[in-house]
Amino acid sequence: MPEKFQTPMIIVNFKTYFEATGRRAVELAKKAEKVSNETNVYIGVAPQFADIATISKAVKIPVFAQHIDPIRPGSFTGYVLAESIKESGAVGTLINHSERQLKLSDIDEAIKITREIGLLSLVCANNPSISNAVATLKPDILAIEPPELIGTGIPVSKAKPEVVTDTIKLVRKVNPKVTILCGAGISHGEDVAVALKLGTQGVLVASGIVKAKDPYTILREFAQATKQR
Amino acid sequence: MPEKFQTPMIIVNFKTYFEATGRRAVELAKKAEKVSNETNVYIGVAPQFADIATISKAVKIPVFAQHIDPIRPGSFTGYVLAESIKESGAVGTLINHSERQLKLSDIDEAIKITREIGLLSLVCANNPSISNAVATLKPDILAIEPPELIGTGIPVSKAKPEVVTDTIKLVRKVNPKVTILCGAGISHGEDVAVALKLGTQGVLVASGIVKAKDPYTILREFAQATKQR
Amino acid sequence: MPEKFQTPMIIVNFKTYFEATGRRAVELAKKAEKVSNETNVYIGVAPQFADIATISKAVKIPVFAQHIDPIRPGSFTGYVLAESIKESGAVGTLINHSERQLKLSDIDEAIKITREIGLLSLVCANNPSISNAVATLKPDILAIEPPELIGTGIPVSKAKPEVVTDTIKLVRKVNPKVTILCGAGISHGEDVAVALKLGTQGVLVASGIVKAKDPYTILREFAQATKQR
Amino acid sequence: MPEKFQTPMIIVNFKTYFEATGRRAVELAKKAEKVSNETNVYIGVAPQFADIATISKAVKIPVFAQHIDPIRPGSFTGYVLAESIKESGAVGTLINHSERQLKLSDIDEAIKITREIGLLSLVCANNPSISNAVATLKPDILAIEPPELIGTGIPVSKAKPEVVTDTIKLVRKVNPKVTILCGAGISHGEDVAVALKLGTQGVLVASGIVKAKDPYTILREFAQATKQR
Repeated sequence: MPEKFQTPMIIVNFKTYFEATGRRAVELAKKAEKVSNETNVYIGVAPQFADIATISKAVKIPVFAQHIDPIRPGSFTGYVLAESIKESGAVGTLINHSERQLKLSDIDEAIKITREIGLLSLVCANNPSISNAVATLKPDILAIEPPELIGTGIPVSKAKPEVVTDTIKLVRKVNPKVTILCGAGISHGEDVAVALKLGTQGVLVASGIVKAKDPYTILREFAQATKQR
Repeated sequence: MPEKFQTPMIIVNFKTYFEATGRRAVELAKKAEKVSNETNVYIGVAPQFADIATISKAVKIPVFAQHIDPIRPGSFTGYVLAESIKESGAVGTLINHSERQLKLSDIDEAIKITREIGLLSLVCANNPSISNAVATLKPDILAIEPPELIGTGIPVSKAKPEVVTDTIKLVRKVNPKVTILCGAGISHGEDVAVALKLGTQGVLVASGIVKAKDPYTILREFAQATKQR
Repeated sequence: MPEKFQTPMIIVNFKTYFEATGRRAVELAKKAEKVSNETNVYIGVAPQFADIATISKAVKIPVFAQHIDPIRPGSFTGYVLAESIKESGAVGTLINHSERQLKLSDIDEAIKITREIGLLSLVCANNPSISNAVATLKPDILAIEPPELIGTGIPVSKAKPEVVTDTIKLVRKVNPKVTILCGAGISHGEDVAVALKLGTQGVLVASGIVKAKDPYTILREFAQATKQR
Repeated sequence: MPEKFQTPMIIVNFKTYFEATGRRAVELAKKAEKVSNETNVYIGVAPQFADIATISKAVKIPVFAQHIDPIRPGSFTGYVLAESIKESGAVGTLINHSERQLKLSDIDEAIKITREIGLLSLVCANNPSISNAVATLKPDILAIEPPELIGTGIPVSKAKPEVVTDTIKLVRKVNPKVTILCGAGISHGEDVAVALKLGTQGVLVASGIVKAKDPYTILREFAQATKQR
């Protein structure tokens, strides 16, 4: 049975930030859980592979891996097996993040693997035409993230609204069901509200939360912004 | 202070084998610990990233990662940060396994990172000339593994003893201190004994243990074979 | 103005076969030209990068590169610039051959570059779902090639006709204009005839011609088979 | 019989610069040939793959490829076969340029291939420890190029002389014969003179010549500077 999820959703990518490694990752995940409990908004966290097991035990919000390799069990030293992150407690995984892009056939295979073993697939895409291609592969969730805005604090929803709306238009023609997020530069609640108004069902965020002075407060602002519609 | 270790050593690479994923990985690590306790031989295990934290808590034998990326904390979604595997309890990491080979400059950088943060580096090499090059980069441990024998059950120590002895000769000219292991096809205690007689200080093994009907018994045979000299 | 082409078409991929390197590549291209002249069928050749200039001068049939990198002029030592292969006489390029697969965003970018500078794009795909994704990126030509049949002599058109027909069905929904080829295992004229009957507009072939005892005769058989409809 | 060469040497890497593509590449090679003839200094050029054949016919100075793949003839669509660049007239090849770095085992294999088929190997390295490792693999020529200076116009020979002298010291311990070049930021004759005084036998240069307003004049200045000792 496929993993369930709700929209609107906020997914926090921990990347390999110092502030989101080991003990600090667990603390950050607990703050995300607190906000989720207080606001009743679906908030997922995507920590590093080695932190998945500990975080999955520490919190009840959904945990995503940041990547899986398109492999089945076997001789693949140093690669990331979907079964491994699932047994550690992850409910899904990012695929093809702009910092960890995959060959097209590997995206296709990775999505098929998530479907087989019951993980959510959240596939990232750089631009509308890539989003369109990804949408045909039927992931559960698609996140449009213009790489030139990642980490800048300039929100895609305000700086490039047409990228978001073009993506939605193209994607809906080939895939009416996929959940669509946007990301890159999301730093304030208002950026989240605008993203939803443009037609997305949530955001993928990283430095905006992880590098914030007070991640709890910002994340709470994000969660409340999802209710402004 | 650098992590300490003893020789002779046996390092068990769990790869992404089904038999060494999740719960099954923890059980296998416990068997390795049992053998280590009973024989007083240094036995390390190298599970998948997502299993490092759980295994490090479950056993007291040394845990290695199978790979790290040559990165510092930052924006590297889906990559493996050395700090992350260290905080999860790993004492070292494999680098450049023949199934996960790195660019030369990335091997150099990964070794430097392990040195900085206090992890053991176990660098793999395919042949004597590559071992020679690796040895100049001053890893803690070097493992020579002819890829054509990996997973075959044909032990490098018996099938290609000259690969092992040539490697030792070349390596010792440029690096008198590095610990030298051999691997590929090691399946019986005798293969381990021969490896040590050829001048190595231990073995790197994977399917020979992980895929064995009775891993405990075979590993015990390996451990006892290290005492035959 | 975009480069023109005709269908049905036969594209011969020279790979890095010894029989299709240097002088031998020029001779093979001349045989392809002879067949094209005699049968009036569109036959293109895809030699190695270093042979493009010489072959483009030696023959009048269309020459394709086997790959381009998704780059603009600049500091990319050792990469393949589209302008470079165009100035050497190529009219188009293969992209994402199963032996040289690209990240999804690089396929997108490479196709955009070919469009900008006036090269034909011939994008390969492993299976129907990947073909569907590729088709949304609007290449000029799409070749479906199940990698498990490449080089086997077992023709995709006969062994996996449903792969070909499923691909055509999916692709036509999102892209009514793209020219569709199939490849892998094509060895006899009959394989070509079947490919066309299934609805493709030609074939991509490599060892079936390059490794043939008498490439001229087999290629002539292929060309004549395109007229059987 | 191995290809012969002289020192001091100047190798001009054309990269994928617009100014060094197609016709413009041929003109630039002719200027290099003119300087070489006038000064009697060994000057090699490293154009893009597709330009090797035309340039090799147009000039008599040595032509290098910018990269080869570690492959033998076979099914490697889109890769660069050593035989192919040799048949097109190249006498050698760059390997592991900092913009096109290779896995360690691929460097080892590529060097072995050049030795077998009679091509000069010019292997690049980023820093002294990597140079040391490369030197053990016995290339014909080794070029130390700190990547942070490439394309800056800040010459390695003046900005980081200790990188050059440390490299020479380390390399000479493991390989007394290899020809050592330095590169990165070389823009004036004086940079070349300093490089030779530090103990190198020449320079690897790219933008300093290719992007110069008057490449002929600057290259002539470089060539004359090699005689200042």
